Amino acid sequence: DTDKIKRAARRVAAAKKQGYAVVVVVSALGDTTDDLMDLCQKITSSPSRRELDMLLSTGEQISTALLAMALHQIKVDAVSLTGFQVGIQTDASHTRARILGVSRERLMTELGRGRVVVVAGFQGVGPEKEITTLGRGGSDLTALALAKALGARACEIYTDVEGVFTADPRRVPEARKIHRISYEEMLELASSGAQVMQSRSIELAGKFDVPIHVRSSATGKQGTWIVKGDSSMENILVRGVTANKNEAKITLRNITDRPGMAGALFRQIATAGINVDMIIQNIAVSGRRTDISFTVSAADLNEAVRVISKIRPAIEKKHIIADRDIAKISVVGIGMRSHSGVAADMFEVLGKNRINIDMISTSEIKISCVVQKKNADRAVRVLHQHFIKQKDRYTVVK
Amino acid sequence: DTDKIKRAARRVAAAKKQGYAVVVVVSALGDTTDDLMDLCQKITSSPSRRELDMLLSTGEQISTALLAMALHQIKVDAVSLTGFQVGIQTDASHTRARILGVSRERLMTELGRGRVVVVAGFQGVGPEKEITTLGRGGSDLTALALAKALGARACEIYTDVEGVFTADPRRVPEARKIHRISYEEMLELASSGAQVMQSRSIELAGKFDVPIHVRSSATGKQGTWIVKGDSSMENILVRGVTANKNEAKITLRNITDRPGMAGALFRQIATAGINVDMIIQNIAVSGRRTDISFTVSAADLNEAVRVISKIRPAIEKKHIIADRDIAKISVVGIGMRSHSGVAADMFEVLGKNRINIDMISTSEIKISCVVQKKNADRAVRVLHQHFIKQKDRYTVVK
Repeated sequence: DTDKIKRAARRVAAAKKQGYAVVVVVSALGDTTDDLMDLCQKITSSPSRRELDMLLSTGEQISTALLAMALHQIKVDAVSLTGFQVGIQTDASHTRARILGVSRERLMTELGRGRVVVVAGFQGVGPEKEITTLGRGGSDLTALALAKALGARACEIYTDVEGVFTADPRRVPEARKIHRISYEEMLELASSGAQVMQSRSIELAGKFDVPIHVRSSATGKQGTWIVKGDSSMENILVRGVTANKNEAKITLRNITDRPGMAGALFRQIATAGINVDMIIQNIAVSGRRTDISFTVSAADLNEAVRVISKIRPAIEKKHIIADRDIAKISVVGIGMRSHSGVAADMFEVLGKNRINIDMISTSEIKISCVVQKKNADRAVRVLHQHFIKQKDRYTVVK
Repeated sequence: DTDKIKRAARRVAAAKKQGYAVVVVVSALGDTTDDLMDLCQKITSSPSRRELDMLLSTGEQISTALLAMALHQIKVDAVSLTGFQVGIQTDASHTRARILGVSRERLMTELGRGRVVVVAGFQGVGPEKEITTLGRGGSDLTALALAKALGARACEIYTDVEGVFTADPRRVPEARKIHRISYEEMLELASSGAQVMQSRSIELAGKFDVPIHVRSSATGKQGTWIVKGDSSMENILVRGVTANKNEAKITLRNITDRPGMAGALFRQIATAGINVDMIIQNIAVSGRRTDISFTVSAADLNEAVRVISKIRPAIEKKHIIADRDIAKISVVGIGMRSHSGVAADMFEVLGKNRINIDMISTSEIKISCVVQKKNADRAVRVLHQHFIKQKDRYTVVK
């Protein structure tokens, strides 16, 4: 709302006073986007993606003008710019465009005039001067692309949380704010359920090597720095523990285990636009028949079952078991790369607490276990207590 | 609202079906503009004109996207374009920019694809890709500039009235819709109080020689054509009668009548940005002292008095008489140019009805009289009855 815009203006003014050249990227006001979607819904239930971009991109433009006005009001010279005015070039994929490049010219001109530049996030300009938007997390992407283009010292992301925590503080009261975390760890946390930033933005930040500072727009306190991993970070084996309750599991029982079977199965699922997360295939126990389990987003479960049911004669419907009652618990830490034993510890801790492990998957810096949903919060708490609280044990002493 | 957008879409579809290539210019939804101004007011009472343009231009962009969606919904291929996408080049005067040129390229490309083109009115793009707006009546100006650029057969203006009337139908029940009127007559009617279109748009249409069809967006009936005047129009002596109640009169009594006095007076008023309409100076009766009366917009009255009071020692405050209790009654007709007697008739009619005339001014095709405000509606009615109803008398028979 406008009070938040005024608060943002004061924060920008303070940064300017400290001598920084400031470029601010703004999102749409929540109300604006809702109002625009309401108007759209009254006209059509299936708007063209191009016209949706035309409609929704106005939201950020409105915010930029209001923030520039709020800055003028407190005597800070400022100018608002849309995506096309900056020259945020994208491809032609409406509603999910990719940034191809950012022009520095206008930004440098305005900064050279001593102005704060307020840029409309989430939007760009495609071929033929088309207005495009970048999809979810789009304003973060804009900020990162501008930070990279300008060689900024840091990209600050103001959000409604204080930073990144060792676990979800709403569920684990003893969770602590993480002060520094690597892009890789953050990426694994994000894909494991931490909802601070979109994976796409973290990936881009890592690629660009732009330090991100995630902090609260309400308090302005120091938050979490997301930076390039270095050896000092490896002293911490486990950086955070997450739970993702938005997945569902599909098990295909007793299916024909012939070469190419799994390929055919997951090709069909991919063609339907469904992302698969974990996959486990048990070894064939007898007579060339086997079980395959995998997880998908809970929202995609019905569609996935529908797609699989069509793969005949290989898979019979009675052999498809869908389970929404699961949660994926993950521990993430860059230190795992060079130290073993974390997996064993994780399984032991869950076992001691009588939490059954359904599926396991690991990456270089992450271990994930699927458990029953009812055990999810308890699993995170006991793992957090084990790995994070007991610093002595899980910090490697050199 | 969205129902009106759907209705506009059906109207466009009908025109398309008739075989026309259609370019539609849209204004902002009334609510949108109000909402945006509310947001602005919460932040500042004196927004920069540049940021105001940035803010308000989103209103038209929203409408274009919604109309394009509504057209898609009824299977009409359509594309929305902002001022910068079309290439409506303007000067750099934010909130009141002038159109310098319109690029045909994108418009022709889209029309060539068989699409309806929905253009955001009221806005353009200035130097350095700045977003500008055209001020009051801006969407009409956009439509006219596009009609000219494309060599359109006509520019249709959809509005909340049925067309242009011989007098305000809310005050004169027997007022008739005018079917054809010249740019010059329309210009005089507009500047005399008829509020169908802004003078600026009519002037531009006349300059471009683009026929305008003013009609109701509600009924879609034939309205009024505003076209180049021709000799056949001169058969009608009086095209319409108007009252303007938004003027006020200032009389300066008994002021020193020396050369340059009037010049100094009106220079001061002009410098203050105040437009003067009618001016009358009585001849000096004695001792080099005289009276001057003139009218200004009622909104400017206080400021005008303040400015004049400062012109010392020539004008004493006690000699300034301000009068809001006036109305300007005008009769307009291109036929007056070649026929005399209308002025005499007008004065006689008012006299017979005991309506005192305070000031008189005439142009080639207009006669205006200032009367007391309480007599305004009656004056219009009696003049309308005399000039418009009695067709036999006021139509010249060749």
